[in-house]
Amino acid sequence: MSRMVDVEPLEPGAFARFGDVIEAEGPPDRLINEGLCGRWHDRARLDFADGRAGISLFRSEPRTLPFTLALLERHPLGSQSFLPMGGTPWLAIAAPDEDGRPGRPRAFRASGTQGVSYLRGVWHAVLTPLGGPGLFAVVDRIGPGANLEEHRLAEGWLIRAAP
Amino acid sequence: MSRMVDVEPLEPGAFARFGDVIEAEGPPDRLINEGLCGRWHDRARLDFADGRAGISLFRSEPRTLPFTLALLERHPLGSQSFLPMGGTPWLAIAAPDEDGRPGRPRAFRASGTQGVSYLRGVWHAVLTPLGGPGLFAVVDRIGPGANLEEHRLAEGWLIRAAP
Repeated sequence: MSRMVDVEPLEPGAFARFGDVIEAEGPPDRLINEGLCGRWHDRARLDFADGRAGISLFRSEPRTLPFTLALLERHPLGSQSFLPMGGTPWLAIAAPDEDGRPGRPRAFRASGTQGVSYLRGVWHAVLTPLGGPGLFAVVDRIGPGANLEEHRLAEGWLIRAAP
Repeated sequence: MSRMVDVEPLEPGAFARFGDVIEAEGPPDRLINEGLCGRWHDRARLDFADGRAGISLFRSEPRTLPFTLALLERHPLGSQSFLPMGGTPWLAIAAPDEDGRPGRPRAFRASGTQGVSYLRGVWHAVLTPLGGPGLFAVVDRIGPGANLEEHRLAEGWLIRAAP
């Protein structure tokens, strides 16, 4: 099996098994503020086993393609949503679970105005901005308990631009 | 009493009575992802009477200073958080409650990387981007019930740049 992963476009259908794409695509669900503002309503399947939702900010060093992905993580107690605030394109990288370990990952290229919400328990890579340092708002579970499971790969995956 | 309101800088202390400024200022609360990412942790007092938190997107027409503010609103059942995704500066406008009506408003100039969370029940203006159309992620209460109270002013306030 090739250890190469080609970056693919971020499309809601392809991403649905891992979570939700949060973007202002298509017509808004409603117009508010006397017609001056569109609302794309409730676009992520937030799911917290306990605790509560909170808003944090992440600022991450950028990555450059190609790079080797050697670490994945998941959060058993809650969904985790990433909303870009700096306009930087980024990669949302997720993997199916295979007997408690991450399987072959997929790498989705998100624009600087596309957010993503990973479903609770979905394997994903750490935040991966492409270009300048990435500022993101993060909506995730706030509460006690072990909500981080990491898996370091014996052999990494080479994440690369589509040929 | 003058019906003029001068825009002021958005500073956490000045804004605290109305809510929280969500920004990556000062050192992060923790470093994650092997030191490559800073986390400013749990920066908003989210508060939902019932229902649950959800993530929506708003895209709003821009305003130009000066303009007349004639409508304020509040959400009795939950906090409402605005996170800019398009880099556009914007105004966070809030007002104290005076016997069930909004008092004199204050207008805070936010940068394109500053978010704001209005406390539950705080009077505020509708989304006010300055410049290009403003794309924002919004974290607010999803659920049934009347969570919008609007107050139209008989006489508006002129919101203007500081002289």
